[in-house]
Amino acid sequence: MFNKICIIGVGLIGGSIARAAREQGLCSKVVGFGRKKSIGNLRTAKELGVIDEYFVDIEPAVKNADLVIICTPVGAIEAIIKQLQPFWSEQTIYTDAGSTKASVIEAVKAVFTEVPVNFVPAHPIAGAEKSGVEASKADLFKNKRLLVTPVQTTDESALNKVVKFWEAIGSIVSIMDAEHHDTVLAATSHLPHILAFSLVNLLGKKDEQVDIFKYAAGGFKDFTRIASSDPTMWQDICLANKNELILLVQQLQDELKGIEHMLKNNESQQLFNTFSYANSARQRFLNQLDNQ
Amino acid sequence: MFNKICIIGVGLIGGSIARAAREQGLCSKVVGFGRKKSIGNLRTAKELGVIDEYFVDIEPAVKNADLVIICTPVGAIEAIIKQLQPFWSEQTIYTDAGSTKASVIEAVKAVFTEVPVNFVPAHPIAGAEKSGVEASKADLFKNKRLLVTPVQTTDESALNKVVKFWEAIGSIVSIMDAEHHDTVLAATSHLPHILAFSLVNLLGKKDEQVDIFKYAAGGFKDFTRIASSDPTMWQDICLANKNELILLVQQLQDELKGIEHMLKNNESQQLFNTFSYANSARQRFLNQLDNQ
Repeated sequence: MFNKICIIGVGLIGGSIARAAREQGLCSKVVGFGRKKSIGNLRTAKELGVIDEYFVDIEPAVKNADLVIICTPVGAIEAIIKQLQPFWSEQTIYTDAGSTKASVIEAVKAVFTEVPVNFVPAHPIAGAEKSGVEASKADLFKNKRLLVTPVQTTDESALNKVVKFWEAIGSIVSIMDAEHHDTVLAATSHLPHILAFSLVNLLGKKDEQVDIFKYAAGGFKDFTRIASSDPTMWQDICLANKNELILLVQQLQDELKGIEHMLKNNESQQLFNTFSYANSARQRFLNQLDNQ
Repeated sequence: MFNKICIIGVGLIGGSIARAAREQGLCSKVVGFGRKKSIGNLRTAKELGVIDEYFVDIEPAVKNADLVIICTPVGAIEAIIKQLQPFWSEQTIYTDAGSTKASVIEAVKAVFTEVPVNFVPAHPIAGAEKSGVEASKADLFKNKRLLVTPVQTTDESALNKVVKFWEAIGSIVSIMDAEHHDTVLAATSHLPHILAFSLVNLLGKKDEQVDIFKYAAGGFKDFTRIASSDPTMWQDICLANKNELILLVQQLQDELKGIEHMLKNNESQQLFNTFSYANSARQRFLNQLDNQ
């Protein structure tokens, strides 16, 4: 499918893409690019057989690459695009794996004014609370959704190749616009992360935390799993999608204020209705999952 | 260990206790008691072999029982104690499985003024988002924590028998006072349930909910699992522990307001610190789990 793939940022996502591409025989060579200060990580990636070669200079990294995939935290994407600009090639397809899409498109526009026709914004909805190339695995994207958010001018052939690439490594691909992507992901991923971080933060400050953690049941472990996610990555995501998120965080405070009111006034019927509504909504979610 | 055990309220918890007691040979007979309107459920329990016999009258149900275990939602416990009062026997040990403990002790006091010496308040920290006797299983309490919250006057021998019973069905038993129990469980169980209900409620009201649910990843399924819990049970628990919960719900709103402020003002360092603190706190939780 490709001759040379260049992965920019060889962590959990970048490493897993590299592994999957090699395993599926989608390229003859995968190289990694990273900052000088993360050279230890690039060495590890090579030792683990995730990449064939690594570079801390961008020019040799992307030279003759057919596909360049930016897998850094979203906050670093504008700086990467700036580094790529002098070597930008019409023969190459560029894509990314950022968790927010409007911000990535803005970052590209900040450098190029218009989004180049061969840049295809994408987002694999997959991950793990562990980060780093050591946690990468070839099947991370298998049966997971991938969203591609092209702009009006995106080249059809570049778009199709990116879609085919992700399908070849097992993803279920959908195409939507960046704004819709950001609205949906704010609700389903970004807000839950903020909630999990907030809850664990609150409890972690308490004097009784040893006992709180000691008597926590399995539900608590599941519920707080995403609070173990990478802080840098999530700081970037939350700021990149802050317009959607601020609204949701406010709405959630209103929900909690409503429950606070019900508790204060012993409104058992309202509590029952609230919990029943949530119970039914989750059932709709489970039914939808089953029918997919 | 016992001759006759009477389970009051044969649902997930009551049914699982019955199954476990039989499997471990801890009694020669288990009977179930329930309301007339839930006779269908009692029939199912007998058909499934969970109980030997069932009653909708309290007198024959508890007659000659060595152990009576109240497994109804906590909001129903006062009414149950009232029904039990005329037949209260010094030869019998009474206990419960309610998720809040101060409220159960209050309910007993409302009927008896003082907590009878042979009533031992207890709480198995185990459950599932499915409810009902059909979901019951003999190993539900295996390696799960059970908290016993005796009052000063609780009989030592009754307390010991209840502890031994739960240990015999696989639980890890700890003893603490009811107030501490309620503080800890509010944080580790009740607040997360309110959060999950609130989140799913908020998203379930949105026009984009089909897409939100469609593109939700595994994290969302885990995170919202407890929103499928039984609304009646949780309405009762939240009201029974409302003093602890109101405070926590307010504190969580403050946490969210703090994050809202950081997002509005692009305070990336503060976001990073907040998420890092949560990340470390959850690591402390995981380390504690490993060392248990």
